[in-house]
Amino acid sequence: MQYINIANEGIKSLSPYQAGKPIEELERELGITNIVKLASNENPFGFPESAKKAIQAQLDNLTRYPDANGFELKQAISQKFGVQPNQITLGNGSNDLLELFAHTFAGEKDEIIYSQYAFIVYPLVTKAINAVAREIPAKDWGHDLDGFLKAINDKTKLIYIANPNNPTGNFLTEAEVDNFLNQVPERVLVVLDEAYTEFTDAKERLDSFELLQKYPNLIISRSLSKAYGLAGLRIGYAVSNPEVADLLNRVRQPFNCNVLALVSAVAVMKDDAFVAKVAENNRTEMARYEAFCQQHGLEYIPSKGNFITINFKRPAQPIYDALLREGVIVRPIAGYGMPNHLRVSIGLPHENDKFFTALLKVLG
Amino acid sequence: MQYINIANEGIKSLSPYQAGKPIEELERELGITNIVKLASNENPFGFPESAKKAIQAQLDNLTRYPDANGFELKQAISQKFGVQPNQITLGNGSNDLLELFAHTFAGEKDEIIYSQYAFIVYPLVTKAINAVAREIPAKDWGHDLDGFLKAINDKTKLIYIANPNNPTGNFLTEAEVDNFLNQVPERVLVVLDEAYTEFTDAKERLDSFELLQKYPNLIISRSLSKAYGLAGLRIGYAVSNPEVADLLNRVRQPFNCNVLALVSAVAVMKDDAFVAKVAENNRTEMARYEAFCQQHGLEYIPSKGNFITINFKRPAQPIYDALLREGVIVRPIAGYGMPNHLRVSIGLPHENDKFFTALLKVLG
Repeated sequence: MQYINIANEGIKSLSPYQAGKPIEELERELGITNIVKLASNENPFGFPESAKKAIQAQLDNLTRYPDANGFELKQAISQKFGVQPNQITLGNGSNDLLELFAHTFAGEKDEIIYSQYAFIVYPLVTKAINAVAREIPAKDWGHDLDGFLKAINDKTKLIYIANPNNPTGNFLTEAEVDNFLNQVPERVLVVLDEAYTEFTDAKERLDSFELLQKYPNLIISRSLSKAYGLAGLRIGYAVSNPEVADLLNRVRQPFNCNVLALVSAVAVMKDDAFVAKVAENNRTEMARYEAFCQQHGLEYIPSKGNFITINFKRPAQPIYDALLREGVIVRPIAGYGMPNHLRVSIGLPHENDKFFTALLKVLG
Repeated sequence: MQYINIANEGIKSLSPYQAGKPIEELERELGITNIVKLASNENPFGFPESAKKAIQAQLDNLTRYPDANGFELKQAISQKFGVQPNQITLGNGSNDLLELFAHTFAGEKDEIIYSQYAFIVYPLVTKAINAVAREIPAKDWGHDLDGFLKAINDKTKLIYIANPNNPTGNFLTEAEVDNFLNQVPERVLVVLDEAYTEFTDAKERLDSFELLQKYPNLIISRSLSKAYGLAGLRIGYAVSNPEVADLLNRVRQPFNCNVLALVSAVAVMKDDAFVAKVAENNRTEMARYEAFCQQHGLEYIPSKGNFITINFKRPAQPIYDALLREGVIVRPIAGYGMPNHLRVSIGLPHENDKFFTALLKVLG
């Protein structure tokens, strides 16, 4: 008996998500220390003190199930962004939400549209539910929204847009997204995945909640794993029209968000100083990465995220391996169809220095 | 545009899970304190010290994503139960796993078998994926396994058995489960949901890992929310044959378990003294509940869990409401088709005393 033969069709060809290599694993393998991990777009400043305090205050209250409705966190999100609590769906990281959208609104043989080189969870969930993937060829590594429009048909249920996009860092302006949404039929839901929005300049950052007023088929997905520093705790949120939120909340696991994720998220939602510090470091250090690449003739994709993707114009795996031996973990993205690129997360100044030195040594 | 019309078919009739009423909510509503919550089968001893220490040690390491493979926890489970790490799938609570089984192995129009009065997540996930529910009428409030066997046909993909069952506390012996599994075709996966197994006496407790040696189509699901006291953190595990585990791990969200849930689970897996204390209290106090019911002519369903279900032979909602006003939260189970019953979690002696006094007052 081969159990793969009784699994759902799409799962047979599913490869699991490849996470960034953990520091401990590299320590075990090579017996080295002082490792710098720039592989998973994590927050280089570490866990915010405000969240640490919130956890300390909760240590005697972990035997009860979490609040299934996330009352306090929805209040905090509501107050910060001027949306209503009944528009919010909370997730065990935004990954949980990205899957929830598909589980709620798409089924076998329905079509889901996303871009080539976009976040890999979109194709994974599309396969897992046996829906039909419409992957639109990228334009300059980013979303070709005209191509998206042409692909919409009667079977289209869901569109995923990552903005800024991961792993390429491409960015769509508010005018571009607005113009696109204006042409999408109301019966097609559009997920705007803004996991990295906090790293864009305030001036150009999309006012996506404003767009939601105009487009009831828009779902905004946000993560607290990046600028907010809570990757280890798993928490994200979606904002949509209340009817869509109600449907998502019916399908969501009732206790999908853990108590400590909820209280930490409430704390950092109010910790504007932390997020500002993180964004400022990213701005300064991104400029250093760009200067470094230009100085050394390395081609890179201009990025609005907290990472930069470098094109080595030859298979990047050996460069990745050599960087590991120098104690620097970055991210190979051959799984995205980009075997010549490596994605590097923007770290603290001394982490970035270590990467620059290691890369120059590796490239000879 | 009604978005419910574009949601997946099964979701249209889906009512969200009704959680036990949180203490804070009752405090807000009635302005009373000293509330006793016996509504969610939570651990009355509070959060184990061993887990608290594990969390304290991890507070500076929460900005990184969790280990997607749960290496340490799989090692701990493997050592405790003599199973192999490649047989294990970790979940964000066992709820996550119960859904994962369906998402991996069942699709639209496939059939899923479970019992009347069994854990409500089984019908919820069956509806959510638009599969066909085969709910087998209960026998004495418990599983009628002969009825299960008769319901198996070519479309059957999955069978859920809760043992002990929630909310009724019914129990199937190892011989009964063995005899059943012996007659189930190998192509049908059987989920044995043992969320409450730690509360059964060691003598009668199933050696389900032994059964797994004989039946490769068995999946054992366990929770750390009950005897282990980690409900707020969300962690559970499944043990199956390695091929099934591989498929489940492909579909699982890569970071479904939060860092603090993982380290807490490793700690309590080694904290046998805590679990023994919890089970001992449950044994002693369950005997007091039975004596109380017998003394006052209350019919109850004999239970092997950490809860007892009382039949008031009239609508129980007014009794539930009156108990709330006395500061005692129990669980109405009309949603399970048991409107005359209330489910009461076994608490600490003083909590149970408060329930006994309140119930006698309410019943006059």
